[in-house]
Amino acid sequence: MARELVDLRSETVTKPSAAMRQAMASAEVGDDCYAEDPTVARLEGMLADAFGFSAALYLPTGVMANHLALRLLAAPGQEVLCDADAHFLLYEDGALAWHAGIQTRTTLSSDGVVKPDDLRKMIRRPKPFSIGTTAVAVENTHNRSGGRIFPLPELQEIRKIADEGGIAVHCDGARIWNAHVRTGVSLEEYGRCFDTLSVCLSKGLGAPVGSVLLLDRSRLAEARVMKHRMGGGMRQAGIIAAAGIYAFENNIDRLAEDHEKARLVAEILRDAGIDVQEPETNMVLVPVDDPDWAVAACMEAGVRVSAISATEIRMVTHLDVSESDAKHAARVVSEVLCRL
Amino acid sequence: MARELVDLRSETVTKPSAAMRQAMASAEVGDDCYAEDPTVARLEGMLADAFGFSAALYLPTGVMANHLALRLLAAPGQEVLCDADAHFLLYEDGALAWHAGIQTRTTLSSDGVVKPDDLRKMIRRPKPFSIGTTAVAVENTHNRSGGRIFPLPELQEIRKIADEGGIAVHCDGARIWNAHVRTGVSLEEYGRCFDTLSVCLSKGLGAPVGSVLLLDRSRLAEARVMKHRMGGGMRQAGIIAAAGIYAFENNIDRLAEDHEKARLVAEILRDAGIDVQEPETNMVLVPVDDPDWAVAACMEAGVRVSAISATEIRMVTHLDVSESDAKHAARVVSEVLCRL
Amino acid sequence: MARELVDLRSETVTKPSAAMRQAMASAEVGDDCYAEDPTVARLEGMLADAFGFSAALYLPTGVMANHLALRLLAAPGQEVLCDADAHFLLYEDGALAWHAGIQTRTTLSSDGVVKPDDLRKMIRRPKPFSIGTTAVAVENTHNRSGGRIFPLPELQEIRKIADEGGIAVHCDGARIWNAHVRTGVSLEEYGRCFDTLSVCLSKGLGAPVGSVLLLDRSRLAEARVMKHRMGGGMRQAGIIAAAGIYAFENNIDRLAEDHEKARLVAEILRDAGIDVQEPETNMVLVPVDDPDWAVAACMEAGVRVSAISATEIRMVTHLDVSESDAKHAARVVSEVLCRL
Amino acid sequence: MARELVDLRSETVTKPSAAMRQAMASAEVGDDCYAEDPTVARLEGMLADAFGFSAALYLPTGVMANHLALRLLAAPGQEVLCDADAHFLLYEDGALAWHAGIQTRTTLSSDGVVKPDDLRKMIRRPKPFSIGTTAVAVENTHNRSGGRIFPLPELQEIRKIADEGGIAVHCDGARIWNAHVRTGVSLEEYGRCFDTLSVCLSKGLGAPVGSVLLLDRSRLAEARVMKHRMGGGMRQAGIIAAAGIYAFENNIDRLAEDHEKARLVAEILRDAGIDVQEPETNMVLVPVDDPDWAVAACMEAGVRVSAISATEIRMVTHLDVSESDAKHAARVVSEVLCRL
Repeated sequence: MARELVDLRSETVTKPSAAMRQAMASAEVGDDCYAEDPTVARLEGMLADAFGFSAALYLPTGVMANHLALRLLAAPGQEVLCDADAHFLLYEDGALAWHAGIQTRTTLSSDGVVKPDDLRKMIRRPKPFSIGTTAVAVENTHNRSGGRIFPLPELQEIRKIADEGGIAVHCDGARIWNAHVRTGVSLEEYGRCFDTLSVCLSKGLGAPVGSVLLLDRSRLAEARVMKHRMGGGMRQAGIIAAAGIYAFENNIDRLAEDHEKARLVAEILRDAGIDVQEPETNMVLVPVDDPDWAVAACMEAGVRVSAISATEIRMVTHLDVSESDAKHAARVVSEVLCRL
Repeated sequence: MARELVDLRSETVTKPSAAMRQAMASAEVGDDCYAEDPTVARLEGMLADAFGFSAALYLPTGVMANHLALRLLAAPGQEVLCDADAHFLLYEDGALAWHAGIQTRTTLSSDGVVKPDDLRKMIRRPKPFSIGTTAVAVENTHNRSGGRIFPLPELQEIRKIADEGGIAVHCDGARIWNAHVRTGVSLEEYGRCFDTLSVCLSKGLGAPVGSVLLLDRSRLAEARVMKHRMGGGMRQAGIIAAAGIYAFENNIDRLAEDHEKARLVAEILRDAGIDVQEPETNMVLVPVDDPDWAVAACMEAGVRVSAISATEIRMVTHLDVSESDAKHAARVVSEVLCRL
Repeated sequence: MARELVDLRSETVTKPSAAMRQAMASAEVGDDCYAEDPTVARLEGMLADAFGFSAALYLPTGVMANHLALRLLAAPGQEVLCDADAHFLLYEDGALAWHAGIQTRTTLSSDGVVKPDDLRKMIRRPKPFSIGTTAVAVENTHNRSGGRIFPLPELQEIRKIADEGGIAVHCDGARIWNAHVRTGVSLEEYGRCFDTLSVCLSKGLGAPVGSVLLLDRSRLAEARVMKHRMGGGMRQAGIIAAAGIYAFENNIDRLAEDHEKARLVAEILRDAGIDVQEPETNMVLVPVDDPDWAVAACMEAGVRVSAISATEIRMVTHLDVSESDAKHAARVVSEVLCRL
Repeated sequence: MARELVDLRSETVTKPSAAMRQAMASAEVGDDCYAEDPTVARLEGMLADAFGFSAALYLPTGVMANHLALRLLAAPGQEVLCDADAHFLLYEDGALAWHAGIQTRTTLSSDGVVKPDDLRKMIRRPKPFSIGTTAVAVENTHNRSGGRIFPLPELQEIRKIADEGGIAVHCDGARIWNAHVRTGVSLEEYGRCFDTLSVCLSKGLGAPVGSVLLLDRSRLAEARVMKHRMGGGMRQAGIIAAAGIYAFENNIDRLAEDHEKARLVAEILRDAGIDVQEPETNMVLVPVDDPDWAVAACMEAGVRVSAISATEIRMVTHLDVSESDAKHAARVVSEVLCRL
């Protein structure tokens, strides 16, 4: 019997389980634009507690969460510093400049880590005719570099530099769950490093929809208006927030399995002579000559991967792919690439 | 036994029924960012067919649907004409100017209808140093004026003026269902008047979340990118789209009941000597001296209404309020207002 | 001997006189970006005094002056009310929406006057998810309606409404000099009606370049940064500011001659059976069937006029056109139009 | 007799000479908004020829010239790559993001040179949900790094990379005159490397006001509209353009004297034990512990310098400072700094 396609393009492809569907079907709801949805409120409260923030805001997507966070921290015509390969610069279609008028200056890295020394060089104090730096943004884990973990000591140093310079720190933590599970650093410990933090429920955690922005209560009223302005003001959002609660309560620790699957995938590829780096979390970047060809060839062989640069494809393990499927996929990809 | 609060603030407060929840629980899903969610695709196809468009796009909110539509029709620095009380100018927090850089020039009316003669005066052709008009936007039914219907002949004349001037027409049709049910004009007949049309599933139709933008297939690729940029790119959105399908299949014709309930409410208020206009659909605007006081006093008496201007409160009938509750609410509001 | 072309397109075509050139040639200058140009400072001081403001800012153009003023009064996502034919909506290329993200709601008039009653209807107080009105803008004299004067009583009533509503008033006073000379209302009297006022030195006053923004000293620092950001931070601007001083000291009262010339032009056109309104200042709007044809035909006959709508051409009198030339031009235009 | 203050803050402080003033006083002018100013046209033609471009546009400032250029090359939501210390990111108040919605990704350098290898890593091709790189911007000479020259071979390599990637190249050439005089590379040779090039007439060349944007004729109509929209549409601009022509014809070669003066300044500072780099053009960066203190102390001692970072002051030589004054200033600054 033919095996189904193994889909390793992204952990965004995960589908809600029966239990998660049941949680949605029975969710108590209200009109969240009036802040009256009890399930949304419960999800927001749970996450605020977990990360040690005084407020949280449920949003339809991580793009909106990052965008909204940076707008709370920087006004039009102000400046945010970050890595040149930040998700919000690479994969959010220029929204920050276009919609929010926020200037970005970046530093080049190969691992997505903004180096504290570079940060010191780039921060500017405002002067006449020269805007100052208002915020710095980091990403943990870092998508473009293959799920790399931003080391806690560097985060803490960035927090310290920011405090000294009177600037804010945002973290795109769509996959902070993976960093947490892999390093053992608590969510709260991570939370202490940031003024705002976006976390995604529909990547590794497996909810169908939704991200949450952690923030200070003093910014909540403005954040609610901005959410509405951006088109994020959903009504009985408790239906999908219920899946977020289920995901948060059930699907964090199991990310270790995804990391192990990624490790196995990398091992098989390396055994086949392909030069892949040891994955830190659930992603394996595979160097190829022609990513578009590789994607098509793997697809034909029953494995979906994604092209993420001119020289790499990406394989992402997740809860809808078993260890056996992951290993099978690794072997298929090895064969495809070695066939050349 | 105490009656529960009767909530007539807006039909956005409706909650999903058991059958609608069942539809969501069993929805087939996929990653909609890859355009792979079959339920979303089915909803989009159904609505495109119904309104006679070649494409449709599911979005988290009506705010995003209006905003996205106008951005497809007008670039930054271009101009859209509309009524001064258009929903997207009153209740969308200045997003169109801020995020899209689109200029609006408006005409004042008391009924939300852009008069064809005014439109003719306002349309400009581009000249050196003078941008031309790119689009006109209408709203049907018109929220701010109390659910007033935009007459079909005027819509058709605007379509004609627009065609002659080479400009596009967008309709904010969040409540076009109500106009359709009340007038008998088919959805397709309405659809023929517009280049883009936004319709809402979570107002009178009762779905928890979601709007759909009807558009031409030639604009779909750009619309998908813009959706993602705006933070509307949800993943397994089929869960909530399934409620939209249920709403579309089951809850349109019954809007006639909401209209009848609004008529009864207006009758009771008029019998109490309050000067209310005959509702055209499901909203009753009630003149009051102090809206904030009226809202609070009604609330205390068990009825929720909303203040919508310095001189009016609004009562909206919907599927979660029975005829008996609506009449009760009208009597309560009458008493509160006549007590003065 | 052939008469030269008589150019009545706009009073922007006026050229500096010998005395004005001499004033520029001998101007003392400094670096105005450091606020060290004594001639610019002198011009700013003179105009602030004349209009009764505590500060003034020299700018390269009136477009920048209007734009900058409204940005001081309204932030991105906020709202300004004005006439639908405001110069900054018709002839400034959508800059206010695009660059400043400011929403406009407008009222339709035939004379450019924002009616106080309309204004009362349009002003909104901020509410959750509904931005409030931040400013209203007027234009005096009103370009598009043919140099019509905004009556002082209406200005004063608008000032009063604005004060009651806590909103600001901007005046595009590019041609306020003409209103002043025609009505005898003092510059200071006009100035009292506004929070910000832009006045142009290169229209009727005849300077080659420059506008001045009158404002409150409390907004000056922000205005200077915005000027720089918009690309208005010129260096030894005293050269051209000197022409502004000359214009202000010598060319105001003589505007009465331009008004008289316009009156004569209108008289001649009416005598020829053309239905023109009595000009209030220095512009005559002439109804024609085909403005593009009329412009070309007048040009061929030695007179330059401009097409300003689908049904009108405009003739503007100014200091570089003598009474004899103006009358000649009126006769030529009459002949061209009656030839049909 | 007391020596006057020697002003080395910037070469923007230079004042027009008697001959330059004479050129302005006698300039033939017209309304440049109608493209009818012969002196502006002559200046634009001269510069287009000199740099080998098919069109040129006179603008009030260099800020506007850079901004306008990048908007011609990149639409809102698109991306420009550059050095993290580009003038338009450091000293133009976030205008590019705010007004134009253009995203910037940058690379960190100490000399303002965008390294071709970094550029190759940063360029992205557009993909679904991922905008591509549209332009790269360079600056020659580079202000923030002290007037460093961008080497021609690197410029040529960047041109080649850009051509291969289908992206455009802009040069902020406010001080390209200095690079030209110092290296002997012709203006045309430089011009060949760029799609758009801004050059400033009011820095080393000594005109009071004005920059020119060099561009392709195919972009001129759009550029004129954008100039007007940005508030750059001056009327009889020939007055100040005449100074630009004088500057271009008379003040280029003499920049060699400014370079020699800067060399002498650096020599004196080094002789005093201060660690300054050899200037490449007309700027000397001087390391200090407390720039604000140093600026004040030098001022008190009769020399104006500017603080340009947390650790440096800047001395700029120009045509209004003689060799004797420059040497005197260097001795004064040495004394002030060594006094500590």
